Amino acid sequence: MFALFRRISFQNRSQAPRILVCPSGFKESLDPNTAADCIEAGIKRVMPHASIDKAPLVDGGEGFTKALVTSTDGELNHVEVVGPVGDMVQSHWGFLGGDQDGTAVIEMAAAAGLSLVPRNKRNPLYTTTYGVGQLIAEALDAGAEHILMGCGDSGTCDGGVGMAQALGARFYNADGSLVPKASGGKALPSLSRVDLTDLHPRLAQVTIDAAVNWHNVLCGPKGVARVFGPQKGASPTEVEELSHAMDRISAVAKSALGEDISFAPGSGASGGLGAGLRLIGASLHPRYDIIMRFLDIDSLISGCNLIVTAEGGIDYQTPRGKIPSEVARRARIHGVPVVALAGTIGEGAGVNYEAGIHAYASIVQGPTTLENAIEQAEKLLADAAESTIRMILIGWTIGRATTPPKEEEGKTLAVTNVTKVHAVNAVKVPMKEAEAF
Amino acid sequence: MFALFRRISFQNRSQAPRILVCPSGFKESLDPNTAADCIEAGIKRVMPHASIDKAPLVDGGEGFTKALVTSTDGELNHVEVVGPVGDMVQSHWGFLGGDQDGTAVIEMAAAAGLSLVPRNKRNPLYTTTYGVGQLIAEALDAGAEHILMGCGDSGTCDGGVGMAQALGARFYNADGSLVPKASGGKALPSLSRVDLTDLHPRLAQVTIDAAVNWHNVLCGPKGVARVFGPQKGASPTEVEELSHAMDRISAVAKSALGEDISFAPGSGASGGLGAGLRLIGASLHPRYDIIMRFLDIDSLISGCNLIVTAEGGIDYQTPRGKIPSEVARRARIHGVPVVALAGTIGEGAGVNYEAGIHAYASIVQGPTTLENAIEQAEKLLADAAESTIRMILIGWTIGRATTPPKEEEGKTLAVTNVTKVHAVNAVKVPMKEAEAF
Repeated sequence: MFALFRRISFQNRSQAPRILVCPSGFKESLDPNTAADCIEAGIKRVMPHASIDKAPLVDGGEGFTKALVTSTDGELNHVEVVGPVGDMVQSHWGFLGGDQDGTAVIEMAAAAGLSLVPRNKRNPLYTTTYGVGQLIAEALDAGAEHILMGCGDSGTCDGGVGMAQALGARFYNADGSLVPKASGGKALPSLSRVDLTDLHPRLAQVTIDAAVNWHNVLCGPKGVARVFGPQKGASPTEVEELSHAMDRISAVAKSALGEDISFAPGSGASGGLGAGLRLIGASLHPRYDIIMRFLDIDSLISGCNLIVTAEGGIDYQTPRGKIPSEVARRARIHGVPVVALAGTIGEGAGVNYEAGIHAYASIVQGPTTLENAIEQAEKLLADAAESTIRMILIGWTIGRATTPPKEEEGKTLAVTNVTKVHAVNAVKVPMKEAEAF
Repeated sequence: MFALFRRISFQNRSQAPRILVCPSGFKESLDPNTAADCIEAGIKRVMPHASIDKAPLVDGGEGFTKALVTSTDGELNHVEVVGPVGDMVQSHWGFLGGDQDGTAVIEMAAAAGLSLVPRNKRNPLYTTTYGVGQLIAEALDAGAEHILMGCGDSGTCDGGVGMAQALGARFYNADGSLVPKASGGKALPSLSRVDLTDLHPRLAQVTIDAAVNWHNVLCGPKGVARVFGPQKGASPTEVEELSHAMDRISAVAKSALGEDISFAPGSGASGGLGAGLRLIGASLHPRYDIIMRFLDIDSLISGCNLIVTAEGGIDYQTPRGKIPSEVARRARIHGVPVVALAGTIGEGAGVNYEAGIHAYASIVQGPTTLENAIEQAEKLLADAAESTIRMILIGWTIGRATTPPKEEEGKTLAVTNVTKVHAVNAVKVPMKEAEAF
């Protein structure tokens, strides 16, 4: 049987099984591209000629740009912009490759992410999305026809005011004074009007699609200031101050757009950047819808025999919009089986079986510390992928080798109306002979 | 596809896949019977009608009697015997059930095991196998026709002298004095002769087969005193004292048996109990050969579609005679695939793929402590078995659903001379329809 495994070699790519590898990243450990490479390496140890499509998945946050640029063989551009606390930071944006080469990809976290805010300056009253606007301006100046914007992992709560300012918007207070550029949510208590006349001229010529967390709203008790303010470093008083600022932005947006976006899905994404993006003409989308559309995940799914996805952790929350369950939801439509690998299989993970993930496994190989697991993550993920494929291959081989016993012909089992799974009793994989090869 | 899994229900046992569950125990955590139950439970969550044969495996040491009695639906007898340090201990032996009901099963560790020696009395100079002889006498008196003796996990190094004394053997020193009963290896420096005239009369009517570690020899640099003495609590001087005692036993055995057993395989098993067993007429066998013969493992293997085995740890040492590799060796003959589950997948475990274990996985679900893993072992093992079966089922379903494309007919792949694995490109499991059921 060892020989059997080694000898399963499909004669050419068109005959080989087609496997879609579409992992998320593992926080603090593996970015999605590396995760996809590890899974591919593990699969190839067992099926060297498998046809593997890699589509590393991201959620709009950190790593979004690099993942999409790498996946599409696009182009990454490095640029210095104003960071969230006002210092200049090294940032980047990119162009997608392939037949989408007019599409720029930008990640807000690359200019205003929480990880760019030094721990001792974690106060969302003062952080700004100004650099995000600069990235958009870079893309516009470089001739982008379309912009794909990823939101998530923000360190700001300025309602996107800084971003819009960098693109030419002017915000005014009730007393007619101008809101200073890049000043943060603190500067918005009496915001009353926005003048969009001098917006970057190319904004009118491009479409901007933003991938946002659809559950984040701008205002109210579940508004972005109250839900995310504390983890960005705001005190309870400051949270209320920011919440008021978001109300002001909503009022301004209502005048400008003729629409109340206080509770519109995604308006609160990335500290209210969703609202600011609306002001400059962007459309907001549930993050996975747009990311997966750009990666053409549906057509990759429909053409494959198996999907291997992955995420740092899989638990009872996974079906509520995490990447593996989003993949599973789409795979179900196309009838393709899904395996998910994870650093940790957490509490209540069993619900994922009902959410369309057909099997999952931890990559950890025994009792160990988180630090060790993180350090070994690449090896562990490749080994887990190998183990997964070996198990699937066992089933595959049994399934291929078993034939319906004569007397049972037509007498199919519960599932056989569809897949013709017949009795397999006493039918064995003739591995002994296989070893002769 | 969720629906697919739920709906795979074989209409009757004869149609269901046949799975052999034959785990070892997990040290300090799960005995083999419990391990088998956990694996069965996990499998049944996915394949409720699978036909499962459970054959919990043991290595002759602690748990041997209970495992065999339980597996064969036999009878366990409780009895008080002289323990390794001379105090009375609660012990047990059994009769196998089924068509082997004349066969008694005895485990040396139940009367002279290391775990019966209090830590402050761990000195193999003074521990005795006397209780083992009492267990044999019990079985003989109860009418056993055959005795299966498990060796391993001993706390003694008396060359089986105590055991033989309990059955009527008299050992004499060079000066003609009698070696006191149950006195341990310390009492054997001038051992010179054994008188077997008054052995238990039924010993001549029964056969005794002992399952021993084939690598353990009585004498020399790799003799039992030198290899195992230290871990049983002997100092370097005491080790030499015991080694000399083993030489004396070998000399006595040579006179009695007409054969030099100093380096005979298994003669040193369980502190030289192997030698004593030879004196009373027993045959020694490599432990797995005899255990698996009694459990009729080969016929269970030949009748199944899949084997799930397990062990506390799987690593580079596993192929050197551990249970999963012994199972794999036999499975290979019958061409049945083997999956091994383990608490820890250790260094160099990859060699097991070459040793006939087709896939393995850790039961651990993420970074955790050994204590936690042990505490959760039952749940973890059942969950891992479920995950394994789910993965195999994915492969199985793909394998069953794929058919050779017309134009490729006859143009089989490397492995297809045997298993007819044809191209599967673009052939998908029609799970969407399956969900309609």
